[in-house]
Amino acid sequence: MSYAPPRVDRARSAERIERDVETLAGSAFTDSSTAICRYAYIDSYRRTLGYFADQLEELGFEISYDPVGTLVARNRPPGEPVFGIGSHCDSNRNGGRYDGTLGVACAVEVCRLSREQDLDLPLQVISFLEEEGSGFGSMLLGSRVMAGHITEEELRNGVVSSDDGEAFWTHAERAGHHPERWRESTRMLDDTIGWIELHIEQGRTLQDTGIQIGVVDTIAGYVHAEVSFEGRADHAGGTPMGTRSDAGLAAAHTMLAVERLADAAGAGTVGTVGELDLRPGLINVVPGEARLSIDVRSVKRSAYRGVLEEVLSSAGRVAAERSLRMESRERVEVPPTSLDQGLVVALERAASAGEVTHTRMPSGAAHDTMFVAQRVPSAMVFVPCKDGISHSPLEEARPADAAVGAELMLGAIIEVVARHTG
Amino acid sequence: MSYAPPRVDRARSAERIERDVETLAGSAFTDSSTAICRYAYIDSYRRTLGYFADQLEELGFEISYDPVGTLVARNRPPGEPVFGIGSHCDSNRNGGRYDGTLGVACAVEVCRLSREQDLDLPLQVISFLEEEGSGFGSMLLGSRVMAGHITEEELRNGVVSSDDGEAFWTHAERAGHHPERWRESTRMLDDTIGWIELHIEQGRTLQDTGIQIGVVDTIAGYVHAEVSFEGRADHAGGTPMGTRSDAGLAAAHTMLAVERLADAAGAGTVGTVGELDLRPGLINVVPGEARLSIDVRSVKRSAYRGVLEEVLSSAGRVAAERSLRMESRERVEVPPTSLDQGLVVALERAASAGEVTHTRMPSGAAHDTMFVAQRVPSAMVFVPCKDGISHSPLEEARPADAAVGAELMLGAIIEVVARHTG
Repeated sequence: MSYAPPRVDRARSAERIERDVETLAGSAFTDSSTAICRYAYIDSYRRTLGYFADQLEELGFEISYDPVGTLVARNRPPGEPVFGIGSHCDSNRNGGRYDGTLGVACAVEVCRLSREQDLDLPLQVISFLEEEGSGFGSMLLGSRVMAGHITEEELRNGVVSSDDGEAFWTHAERAGHHPERWRESTRMLDDTIGWIELHIEQGRTLQDTGIQIGVVDTIAGYVHAEVSFEGRADHAGGTPMGTRSDAGLAAAHTMLAVERLADAAGAGTVGTVGELDLRPGLINVVPGEARLSIDVRSVKRSAYRGVLEEVLSSAGRVAAERSLRMESRERVEVPPTSLDQGLVVALERAASAGEVTHTRMPSGAAHDTMFVAQRVPSAMVFVPCKDGISHSPLEEARPADAAVGAELMLGAIIEVVARHTG
Repeated sequence: MSYAPPRVDRARSAERIERDVETLAGSAFTDSSTAICRYAYIDSYRRTLGYFADQLEELGFEISYDPVGTLVARNRPPGEPVFGIGSHCDSNRNGGRYDGTLGVACAVEVCRLSREQDLDLPLQVISFLEEEGSGFGSMLLGSRVMAGHITEEELRNGVVSSDDGEAFWTHAERAGHHPERWRESTRMLDDTIGWIELHIEQGRTLQDTGIQIGVVDTIAGYVHAEVSFEGRADHAGGTPMGTRSDAGLAAAHTMLAVERLADAAGAGTVGTVGELDLRPGLINVVPGEARLSIDVRSVKRSAYRGVLEEVLSSAGRVAAERSLRMESRERVEVPPTSLDQGLVVALERAASAGEVTHTRMPSGAAHDTMFVAQRVPSAMVFVPCKDGISHSPLEEARPADAAVGAELMLGAIIEVVARHTG
């Protein structure tokens, strides 16, 4: 098959993508004056979806929402094959303007290019609900629903608002959605022949190597767990050091064990303790209880499982030495995802044709694409972000890189659609 | 001087003290269904003061409150010398029934004994406001006000409600007090010729040695400080271990340093990290900020100052190694307090006369007596508490020990009053 690279005015694409991102960093689209903060179903989030919906309607797309509120826009009637593109436009609560939103903006740019170049590619744009989980504490919620990777029990009772403790289910209904029909969401991927998500790298590999585009061939798997220690909440003045059962010190040992063991596991394995609560949490009381979260990730399942196992052994030893009770609970495990080799090659071919420097790389972060890939051949495009910073108002990415990313997506989609219809 | 020990029916005293303590553990006197939780100026606290006020009124005491709400009851008109006794009846938020409250109950028992035995001792009972600081985050507040050991600026703007963030000043006014006249509180100690506070030990020394009464001759001093680390809140998946600036791990190192250095300092020095906050506090984000509290205590000022200094050096080294910014702030220092040798000996004499096993000991915990002792010759009586547990619903103490404590207080007061008037 001969490959005709699309001719794209990259500067114009960059301008349009930048306009979208900057508009959505405005005060109507975030609940924070110093960061991006939007999540299901608050006004700033609704307006952000509305902004993308308006853009897509102008391009001839039919707008719909799945039963929990994931935006799905397509330019073909149901039943006809489409190629899926998109990301998410919710943020963590102290987030930046690029994480997720840049991917939806680039998907819209692909739609614009398809129309301007009279390609009339069959496309379906998706903006997944609650990727960050910052509204309801449950990451990748929209894509898990669409992949059918959740239970009714969990969705109905296990997911609650971080703001008011009310059920996700209730909030979804109040927002006008139909959570009771959540199983219908899986149909949204029935006619999809492929999927590409563009995202900022959230690491420093591209910046440090000076390479413009990462073509993601694997997404690291991860395990989320928590460990609790229970000791005795003694008076900080009246209790000699030797007679304490200080749960906080066991937590401190465990935090350092997570770092040491993830480091030792190699293969890019990372381990993080992001949450730690001491109780009663008073300056003059020895902590009687401590609870910490554990996040371990690797492209090798054996690596992250091994680290978790060793961390729990270490925590158990510390608990025994200090006369504490120790409990652990695994919150969730998501195995590593191998992406579609055909799509990866199509993206690389588009990059070479466009004279774009590129490299294959794993994603350390989780993405909705992990769940889409269970149903549809999928790949991801990474663009550099400054110093690898994400989940922070200091996030920075270049619209010019995103424009190149959109161009490569367009090229790969042309190839796949041609092969599919040819 | 010959010493005639008072003849006290210890069993009857124990019954009355137990009745007071058990009554005040009832639902009208705590805001928690599983613990004692009362603090200025909530209803359960007001009712607790009211309970003691009623008891004291029946015994012929005039009830008054200082300008911030500390209960002061006396059986002599202002200007006449009195002997002060009491403690506090607020609790920490997950507290037990004995800490503080037992001391007020024993003070009331001393008043009962004085009357029953027609001793007509000149007495002033005090129940200090906010000893635990659980309402307004400021420990020993009432006694600091009464000792004049606070500034108007701090009292007006530096002390705020842990519940609603509103100023202590506003809450005090709303409760019917006159914070603007706080300086008048110091007059409450003008006519006081001595002070004894009874308290549970909050340690295990008495239990472990089988001794019934501790006569406290020193109260350990302490320093409260906090340390903050600022790093970078990176994505837990996308950020390799070697490129992180994890503020949480620096906090973990510092927690362990507090334990190690307090242990090494000897002389009963203790060090505690009771508060620790990680930000943003999400499972999938490397902590960009961490803040921890430090509490170091010793009967030797050089010991607790030395530990704090070494902890801060250690924190600074860890911050430098991990490319973090470190800041520290000293919240408060209270130097060790030597109690009155004459009163200590009077209590020991009463104990010997009553054939009560007793020992001199320091107090590791802080008490209102630290501030009273700046104005008035003071001592303290410790009674054993089970396993040294305090600040917990598991607190236990024996009314029989408290009755003996009240008897020794009565004996010492008889001696001091006789000497003063003789």
